[in-house]
Amino acid sequence: MKIDIIAKDGTARAGKIKTSHGEFDTPAFMPVGTQATVKTLSNNELDDCGVQILLSNAYHLYLRPGEDIIKNAGGLHKFMNWEKPILTDSGGFQVFSLAVLRKVTDEGVEFRSHIDGSKHFLTPEKMLEFQTSLGSDIMMVLDECVHYPCEYEMAKRAAVRTLEWARRSKDRAGGDFEFKPNREQNVFGIVQGASYRDLREDCARALVKMDFDGYALGGLAVGEPREITDEMTRFTVELLPEDKPKYLMGVGEPQDLFDAVSAGIDMFDCVVPTRNGRNGTAFTSNGRFSVRTAANAKELSPIEEGCGCYACRNHTRSYIRHLFNTDEILGLKLVSLHNVYFYQKLMREIREAIKEKRFTEYKNERAEEWNSKLQTR
Amino acid sequence: MKIDIIAKDGTARAGKIKTSHGEFDTPAFMPVGTQATVKTLSNNELDDCGVQILLSNAYHLYLRPGEDIIKNAGGLHKFMNWEKPILTDSGGFQVFSLAVLRKVTDEGVEFRSHIDGSKHFLTPEKMLEFQTSLGSDIMMVLDECVHYPCEYEMAKRAAVRTLEWARRSKDRAGGDFEFKPNREQNVFGIVQGASYRDLREDCARALVKMDFDGYALGGLAVGEPREITDEMTRFTVELLPEDKPKYLMGVGEPQDLFDAVSAGIDMFDCVVPTRNGRNGTAFTSNGRFSVRTAANAKELSPIEEGCGCYACRNHTRSYIRHLFNTDEILGLKLVSLHNVYFYQKLMREIREAIKEKRFTEYKNERAEEWNSKLQTR
Repeated sequence: MKIDIIAKDGTARAGKIKTSHGEFDTPAFMPVGTQATVKTLSNNELDDCGVQILLSNAYHLYLRPGEDIIKNAGGLHKFMNWEKPILTDSGGFQVFSLAVLRKVTDEGVEFRSHIDGSKHFLTPEKMLEFQTSLGSDIMMVLDECVHYPCEYEMAKRAAVRTLEWARRSKDRAGGDFEFKPNREQNVFGIVQGASYRDLREDCARALVKMDFDGYALGGLAVGEPREITDEMTRFTVELLPEDKPKYLMGVGEPQDLFDAVSAGIDMFDCVVPTRNGRNGTAFTSNGRFSVRTAANAKELSPIEEGCGCYACRNHTRSYIRHLFNTDEILGLKLVSLHNVYFYQKLMREIREAIKEKRFTEYKNERAEEWNSKLQTR
Repeated sequence: MKIDIIAKDGTARAGKIKTSHGEFDTPAFMPVGTQATVKTLSNNELDDCGVQILLSNAYHLYLRPGEDIIKNAGGLHKFMNWEKPILTDSGGFQVFSLAVLRKVTDEGVEFRSHIDGSKHFLTPEKMLEFQTSLGSDIMMVLDECVHYPCEYEMAKRAAVRTLEWARRSKDRAGGDFEFKPNREQNVFGIVQGASYRDLREDCARALVKMDFDGYALGGLAVGEPREITDEMTRFTVELLPEDKPKYLMGVGEPQDLFDAVSAGIDMFDCVVPTRNGRNGTAFTSNGRFSVRTAANAKELSPIEEGCGCYACRNHTRSYIRHLFNTDEILGLKLVSLHNVYFYQKLMREIREAIKEKRFTEYKNERAEEWNSKLQTR
């Protein structure tokens, strides 16, 4: 896998990445389909929003429905009937944030399921094998995540372990598989190292030597100040090869996307558009607002004037607010759908701005607009 | 309003009913959109299912969002952006089943909201006025419902009061209105009388004298044996004018529809397809079954082979079962959508069978098939 760079504007870049399930444009935002479904939305709705690639989560799928059921369907694409690219997260982050009684050793991680308390032992090899049987177009290596703030020694131990796990994952990826629904699968390494430059640098250089199909930045946007996220991102991106995709995991708010794109990031994922959608918080070019407020009780305008999404073409804020007030599922869907559409539109605009060499201008304009009107409604 | 009878087969009839929001074919099944939304489904999905008319509920809409907000939108059609016909139930049944501390007098009914305990006093005139401002194509008069079993004297008192309320509703419908978003609104009377022939007969004859746009049978399918529902339906339908729509409220299961159509009923509504959908119970021509059972864990067939709905064209039982297991909203939608589609398809088949003078044959065939395979999966 490589990225075809179509245009550059400073360090920001617009390109295309090919997979055996079609290509996607970068910078790309992947909606999160944790449990093989982007919450509240059906595939035709994701298509209508312009989604070209989505993320699912190996940790969750490993627990439910489990490997057997997904193998039986012929892999994850067939299981959920999504024909475009899928990236699966290894579950590193979930094991460290959701699972209970975990015990990490160099071998792997032992934990109890957050669902039923059942005991599991995951190794880097096992998660690579599982993602192979999912048929993910992009598989992530198992990594060890640390919290913020994290002491240097602990961050170092996790980074070293992540590197060793990356090596073992890469080795396993080169081996034989009984069940492999997708012949062209790619593996991304994950740069850890918390907010320590030297750890990030060592980790990045070692991963590059292992020659992954792409590189992710992990352990960022986990609570540290935005300046640190930005500094670590810029610093790390420069250590990674130009012709490979660069993915900033778990990011983020529109402002974060602007920053990271300008640093040279190509791929993003985040629950922000969907989780906020289910809370009734809508994203617009004028900032975000809650459709649930009394101010929207009689508001006959859509979530965003001129927006082409199904929700905005068909429904008023007044109606959507009523749906939230009465706990109607359609409300959750309409705002989620709008937000997913909004994020895809944002990425299209970002790509256009890069191609037209006016990304910085666009970014500043939008950021200013966004900040000035933030939560004013 | 009248019904254009296109074909008759015994007492069963197929026709068309015109409204100012377009016409609908009968026998018709109206999905229930209690709170101005058919739970989990968007309007484009209802269109895809072939829905031609839906039911909403004046009692619920009166409490939330309230008259003011719906008037502000220009009526219910505009509020929910549904351009086809809408029938609104008056809320009689809901006042008697949901509201607390109700007190019924000849004047009206005093109750406390089931949502926030607020006190309300509804009269037949007020409910007619409210439905007028909703712009419903068909408005139902406020009636007094009784439970099953119900003693004769109590049933009689309720029937007499329902008649008097019907008269007052009819009078109010002929008056002036400040806000009337739909100029061609129709009012249906409701025949009550529990399971007492003489009460049903008196009520029906008196309503017919008042000359309503259509007639509903209320207080049936409230727990009485199916034989009684069927007997009361057949007996009452014969007392009503041939050229007017006849509506059996709150019915029902497919078997009930077959019986009532053969008695001459033209319209139905019921929460059965949507409520069951949200429980994971799917209707098929082979009976109904739960997609949640372990038997479906690896089942790669759709809910129903050959079904043209979005769920069946796109997803396996295995996937839908996973969605239910993981509490994903998409699961609720897919089965609801299938069931609404199934009911619309059933009504199309019923209409075709009547037109081809083979309704009894079709009904017996389907009933036998249905019963023999009922819940065998």
